[in-house]
Formats: sequence, C-alpha cells, structure tokens
Amino acid sequence: MPEPRVTVWNEYRHELDNPRVSAVYPQGIHAVIAESLRSHGLSEVRTATLDEPEHGLSAEALAQTDVLVWWGHKAHGEVQDEVVERVVTRVLGGMGLIVLHSGHFSKVFKRLMGTGCDLKWREATDKERLWVVNPGHPIAQGVGEYLELAAEEMYGEHFDIPAPDELIFVSWFTGGEVFRSGCTFTRGSGKVFYFRPGHETYPTYFHEGVQRVIANAARWAAPTASAPRSFGNRQPLEVLPAGDGQ
Amino acid sequence: MPEPRVTVWNEYRHELDNPRVSAVYPQGIHAVIAESLRSHGLSEVRTATLDEPEHGLSAEALAQTDVLVWWGHKAHGEVQDEVVERVVTRVLGGMGLIVLHSGHFSKVFKRLMGTGCDLKWREATDKERLWVVNPGHPIAQGVGEYLELAAEEMYGEHFDIPAPDELIFVSWFTGGEVFRSGCTFTRGSGKVFYFRPGHETYPTYFHEGVQRVIANAARWAAPTASAPRSFGNRQPLEVLPAGDGQ
Amino acid sequence: MPEPRVTVWNEYRHELDNPRVSAVYPQGIHAVIAESLRSHGLSEVRTATLDEPEHGLSAEALAQTDVLVWWGHKAHGEVQDEVVERVVTRVLGGMGLIVLHSGHFSKVFKRLMGTGCDLKWREATDKERLWVVNPGHPIAQGVGEYLELAAEEMYGEHFDIPAPDELIFVSWFTGGEVFRSGCTFTRGSGKVFYFRPGHETYPTYFHEGVQRVIANAARWAAPTASAPRSFGNRQPLEVLPAGDGQ
Amino acid sequence: MPEPRVTVWNEYRHELDNPRVSAVYPQGIHAVIAESLRSHGLSEVRTATLDEPEHGLSAEALAQTDVLVWWGHKAHGEVQDEVVERVVTRVLGGMGLIVLHSGHFSKVFKRLMGTGCDLKWREATDKERLWVVNPGHPIAQGVGEYLELAAEEMYGEHFDIPAPDELIFVSWFTGGEVFRSGCTFTRGSGKVFYFRPGHETYPTYFHEGVQRVIANAARWAAPTASAPRSFGNRQPLEVLPAGDGQ
Repeated sequence: MPEPRVTVWNEYRHELDNPRVSAVYPQGIHAVIAESLRSHGLSEVRTATLDEPEHGLSAEALAQTDVLVWWGHKAHGEVQDEVVERVVTRVLGGMGLIVLHSGHFSKVFKRLMGTGCDLKWREATDKERLWVVNPGHPIAQGVGEYLELAAEEMYGEHFDIPAPDELIFVSWFTGGEVFRSGCTFTRGSGKVFYFRPGHETYPTYFHEGVQRVIANAARWAAPTASAPRSFGNRQPLEVLPAGDGQ
Repeated sequence: MPEPRVTVWNEYRHELDNPRVSAVYPQGIHAVIAESLRSHGLSEVRTATLDEPEHGLSAEALAQTDVLVWWGHKAHGEVQDEVVERVVTRVLGGMGLIVLHSGHFSKVFKRLMGTGCDLKWREATDKERLWVVNPGHPIAQGVGEYLELAAEEMYGEHFDIPAPDELIFVSWFTGGEVFRSGCTFTRGSGKVFYFRPGHETYPTYFHEGVQRVIANAARWAAPTASAPRSFGNRQPLEVLPAGDGQ
Repeated sequence: MPEPRVTVWNEYRHELDNPRVSAVYPQGIHAVIAESLRSHGLSEVRTATLDEPEHGLSAEALAQTDVLVWWGHKAHGEVQDEVVERVVTRVLGGMGLIVLHSGHFSKVFKRLMGTGCDLKWREATDKERLWVVNPGHPIAQGVGEYLELAAEEMYGEHFDIPAPDELIFVSWFTGGEVFRSGCTFTRGSGKVFYFRPGHETYPTYFHEGVQRVIANAARWAAPTASAPRSFGNRQPLEVLPAGDGQ
Repeated sequence: MPEPRVTVWNEYRHELDNPRVSAVYPQGIHAVIAESLRSHGLSEVRTATLDEPEHGLSAEALAQTDVLVWWGHKAHGEVQDEVVERVVTRVLGGMGLIVLHSGHFSKVFKRLMGTGCDLKWREATDKERLWVVNPGHPIAQGVGEYLELAAEEMYGEHFDIPAPDELIFVSWFTGGEVFRSGCTFTRGSGKVFYFRPGHETYPTYFHEGVQRVIANAARWAAPTASAPRSFGNRQPLEVLPAGDGQ
C-alpha cells in the first residue's frame, strides 16, 4: 500500500501573535508536525493554514489528501462552514482525520461527534503521563508503557464525546485529573483519531513519542480500498431462491 | 424510580394526505404509539406533532419530557433548526430519544450521529424478521428470538451510522438484505435508541412485539440521576498529597 | 420489576488471619457490603464464603441468586473448578456478577474474560480518585464527578482485559498511574461489572460513594426477562415467501 | 512492515474420511487456503494439522507464526489442552488468530471468548449473502457490498459471543436467518477475527471474495511492535512533582 498523502492544517495565529509561542514554533506548529511526519518516512506531506484562500482546503487540495491533521484553537469560529462541510464529506468518504489538542472544539470535530466536546482545562505547566491501555493497537506501536510530557496544559474529564470505538491512551495529570487522550472513531468510511497533546506554549510536537504516535496514526487512518457504500431505492423485490444444491 | 414522562412526536402528514395511511392510522401514528405505551404501564404520555406551534416541542414541553419518541419522513426539512438544537441540547443533558423508522433521516438524528445516516430501501411489502442478537438487554426483554412482521418496507445495509454502542436487533428481508435495526447510542448524558420498523402504510405499530420493544426502550432511555458534568477552567494547580496513611 | 436477590461472596480469610484487616472488617468484608446493600433498599441479600460447603454456592443457592458480588484475593486457587463452572454457567444464563478489586484474578473472572487479567499494583496507602467518564450510566447515578478514597492500594495499567463494553470510571493515583476501574461486560445473557476498590486493609467498603456504586451495579446487573437463546439444528430449510401484500 | 508469517491449521479429518469432502478439497482445506494466501502476496505461509506431532503447533512453530488460521470441526476434543494454552498465550502476546466457520466451537476460541459460542445451524445448501456493515475496515477492502455464496451451511443467531469490538459482516440466509459473520476481538496484544464461511462440503475457500477477506484479515491481524505490557509490584510510591514550568 502506498504511503498516505498527509495535509497538516494549522490555525497558525498564536505563532504570529504571541512571542511565547513563536519562540517555541517559529515556523508554526504545522511545520514541525510536517517535518516530523517526513522523518518517519511519510514523503507526501503538505501544510495548510487558516489564512490561506479557502483555508488551504480547496476541493482540489482535499481530493489529494488521504489524511488530514487538524490543529486549531482560538479561531474555530473563523473556519467557513462550507469548508467544514467539505472536510466532513471527505471524512465520511474515507479520508483519515487526526484531531489534535484544542481541535476538540473545532467545528469539524464537533460536527462529526454530535456532542458538545467540552472538557476541563488548566494552563499551569502540569506534568502529563499518557498511559497505553490498548498495547497491540497500531497507533501505539513503538511507544513505551506511557509517554511522559514534562510540561503541558491539563485536560480533564468529563470529556463530552461519544464512547470511542477504541480507547488507546489515558492521561494522568499532577493535579488529580485523568483524560481519555487517545480515541478512535469511524465515521462513514473515514477513520478519526483524537490525540490530546499539545498546547501551543510547550514544545510538545518536538517530543519523540508524540511524533511517533502522530505518524502511526497517519498510517492507521489512511483510506483503504473501501467496500462500496450505495444507498437508495432497490426495486423490484425478488425472492431469492435457495442455494444451488437444492 | 418513577416512570418516565414520554412525548411521542409525529410528523403527522401522511395520515392527513394519504387515504392508505389514514385507513391504518386514522388518529395518527402518534396516537397508536401513545396508547400502546399507556397499555404498558407508562401513565405520563403526551403527543406532539409538526404543525403545532414550535412543533409541540416548546422549551416547557421538553423540560417535562424524559423520553422523546420521534417519527418523521417527508417533512424533515420543515423542522425548525431552533427546535432541532433544543431537542439535541436536551438529549445531551439526559433526555432519552427513540428514533423510529424514517426518522433515520431526521435533522435531530443526523445531528447526533454526525454521519449521513443513509441506507437502501424498497417499498414492496416485504416480510421482515428482527433477530435479537443481545438477548439479555433490557430493550429485548419479553421478546421472542425474533419479531416477524408480515409486511414492511425494506431497509438494507449499508446503514451509514457510527458503530452503535450496542446492537440489539438485526433484520432479515425476503429480498436478500440485512439491517442493523435496533441500535443504542449514548450522546452526552442521553440515551438514544434507533428502531427500524414501521412504514406508514403498514400496521406495524399495532404489532405486539413492536409495542413491547418501544415500551422497553422508553424505560431504558429514561434519564438517571446523572453524575454531574462540569467543564471549563480549573485553577489553580495543587499537587495532591499521597493518601492519609503515608 | 422486583428487587434482585443478591449474594455477597467473600473469601473471608484475611479477616480471620490478619489483625489489621479484622480491625477494619471484624465481621468480614461481606457483612459490610451486605449491610450496605440492605441500607440501599435491597432487601434480599445473603452472604457466602469460601470455607462453607461448596463455598456457599450450591446449585440451590445460585438458583436463588440474581446478582453475585465477588471478593477474593489470596485463595483464588482454592475455589473448586466445579463451582467456578457453576457460577460461569449461571452468568451466561443471566445472573449478574459484580467483581471487586482483587477479584480481577479470580478463576471466575479470568474464565469469563479469556485474558490474563493482570495489572500493576502497589500497597502504599495511595490516594485514589475514580473519575466518572460515562455520567448518564445507571451505575454512576447519584455519584459526584469523582469518588475520592483517601487510602487505597494502587492498581495501574496495563489492565489485561478485553475492551469493556462500557467504561464508567477511570482511576487516578498519586504515584502517576491510571486504571480503568469501572468496566461493564456482557457474557451470554449475564451482565458483569468490574469495580476496582477496595483493598482489605482500608475501610473502602464503608465509603458512601463506593456503597452507592455497588448498589447501583446490583440493580443494573439484575437479569431481565431475557429473550430466549436457542441453539442447534434447524431443519428443514423453507424458503420464506415475501410479505402478505405481494 | 514485513509480511506476516502465516500458519494455516486444519483438523484435516473430513477430507480423509468423507469422499464428498475429498472431492472438493483433495489436498485438504489448509492447502487451498495456504495457496490462496500465497497468491495474495503472503510468501511465508505454512500449514499444520491435528495429526502431526503436537498438532504441528510446537513452541518453535508458534514462535515463528505471526498469524494463525484455524479450521476445526469434529475433533475439537482431540486438541490437547497443553497446545490450546500455548496458542492462547501466543495470542495474548500478540499473535493474530483467524477462526473459520466451525472453529467457533474450538477450545481455543471458546477459551478466548469466555462464552458458550453456540449458534443455530442447518446443513441444507442454503444461499448466503455476507453484507459489509463496516465498509472502511481493512478486512473489507476490495470486497463488494456483499459476498454471495451459492451453497453454504446456515449459521443463525443467537451467536453466543461477547459483543465484538468491530462488526464487519452480517450474513443473510434464504431460510430467514441472520448471523454476525465477520467479527473482530482484541485479546491481550493479539487480534482475533472470526469469519463464518465455509462448510467442508462446499467449495467456499475457492471463492475469490472469501480468499480476499482471509488475506486482508491476515494482514490486519499481524502483530505490531506492541507497546510493552508489564505487570506486578511497583514500589515505592513517589509523589510526582508538577511539570517543569512550576
């Protein structure tokens, strides 16, 4: 199977507005994730950002995207509804989607989940441990028993999502919270992975384990040669005969 | 636990427009379902229809509804978005929802599922068998190994829904199709049950087994005294000490 | 529906051997759990222990048990295989089963799970928080956002169980671990709930929230009037005709 | 990722005892499945049968097996318990397992499921349609909306298994039955796929779609570089400090 073509989408505002963030991600979060995916052997990786025409997600761009990675935070409301529907349609048709961190509140994710997607949070440089609870899953391969992040924003339960199809990581935070931080969902023919890290002020996307998980997820979420999905009227009714041996 | 207060919502158009339907349901599908629920011991049952003000689903009406039953078909588009959001918000807050038959394409169901919710269909008086695949589930109690309906519209896979939390019934049709016809989903604190029968031209809602399943589902979907769901900022960070015995 | 008849089974060895344990549970863990269930309105509660004839789980005793609560630890190996099979058969036939704490390694639980059921542990008076991740579930009703236990043994992932049908609680421990501490499974017509607390040296079963969860679970796990489960040869083959309307 | 090494295990008794079966599978069912896997590009395929020493499943043989395919029927009882435990241990450690048809009643499958695994059946040359209900799943890739088998034994619900992690195929039979015929389960680090066809008297394993599904499943079930699973005592307790930024 050929390697999936990945588009890394980033809101790309914090990096331009906030010196604390640009100090960590001078070229933007998307550039770091894209480079990391390339270093994991995914050769077809491009980036797109909110302020490009059509947010960099034209029909043509999406048609050439097998897996879309999504990072957004403070400008969810600026993502045009038309683009949201375009992305959702592509996911239902088979495109993989990896939603990172504050993307839990993106229009795309909320639209696919059908729930509020809210959670608790604390910006306070907490320590996070992401424990693997599904060790044989392809997304966890090559990862240790847990990933430890020395500095992260806390996200805590209750996380208002449908029960995930598969739960892969559960996070622990110093302050006493837990979080379902690695969750898979199938929507239509598309595979969706939500992954909790990383807040824009911390160097989370430089973390080797985080990079590996995102690369694993990109391969896992790649579309297969899906069985066809056809709908609509099926006339006429023919009562099927029994098998040939009757 | 007190019995849930149920509102049976019906589009109530076919019964007024189509003599074939009014011959079967002269008072409307909602009247038959409501009467059936009462005969199963649910004493607080009211009905609501599309053409009432606010579709009969005012904030007050919903506040007094523990479980909402939904039948709609040809006028999905006429359901006001404001009412849809009101219903969805109540479901996420704990109200049960039972979606019947062509309600698979209602705005409310599609909004909660996040998928296209499409399927195959054939109006051709097919025989249907709904096999129980989860015999210990409360929704299946008192039902035999299968329900058999002598005349129904066919619905066939692929049914474009998220994988249900629980699969309870699988339908068989003469024409060679199968369908996941009894599916549960949790969305927020609310329990959702999709149940495939019955097409408006057939007397499906007079069928004893169908009536029992809907009554079982109304009890199953009733809200519990939900654990609280709180969201938002949790400052400050306190590192918790170890247990008292340290 | 009548209240379920509950049997609380306890190994009842630590309480006799270890003064630290008998100081907490002078009449045995089973006595405290049984009394708590009665105080939650379950009037038909009896107890059984390992050293009774047939471990107190004769065919007659099990036939009159709707829900079995299981606490065992150091004498798992002494439970007779014949009794294990008897319990498993009853569960598959519809009896509810609530497995507590170190019961994760009981023959009954391992037999029903099919996996190793191992985990990490630390006897070190850790603080535990059990976060509700499924707030609308009947087992969580009346519980706050989390239960906090001031002193408990730690259990940590990876917990070697099949993916639970429903995940209700996730535990946090001071030492940096998490655990899927409230899990439901259906096996045959029987409902199974695994609940992680409490270690024998701590007064966990006197904790109001823990008591409430066990009482909720006893009601949730009660058998329904299950749809029949029949198996075996189905001769002859008759091709079903289409529906009556053809 | 290198292609998985597959061992196709067959009871291989019907083919020697019954001329009707040997007419269809003169070299045995295992030979046809193995050849089919090779034709789908899996180059490392060997076979093993019941009457070989240790049933062809010595520790060495299993150590070199990434995915085990299992066909058994009338001699389940002759499979030595020691070999069963060896296979189960390998599955929990990550080896994939594909259980075919009457293997539903094998010791290995029952041991991993924890349930009775019984079902209805009819040997009567029925027509079977296996509908894809999870079209984006890797096991369904390259398959049409359904597979149709002109002649098969019927298997009908209720199928006494735990709810599968993923449901991929649902079968339709002329006689009015349905069956969950393609089910995945994770047990430990191992992936398990149950696939319903084919009865020994029919040429099912020559069917192109059936062959493709088994080949897809072999790739899907291949072990990943699993995250480590470690268990046992974790002393001492250290209260973790907050993140580096505190």
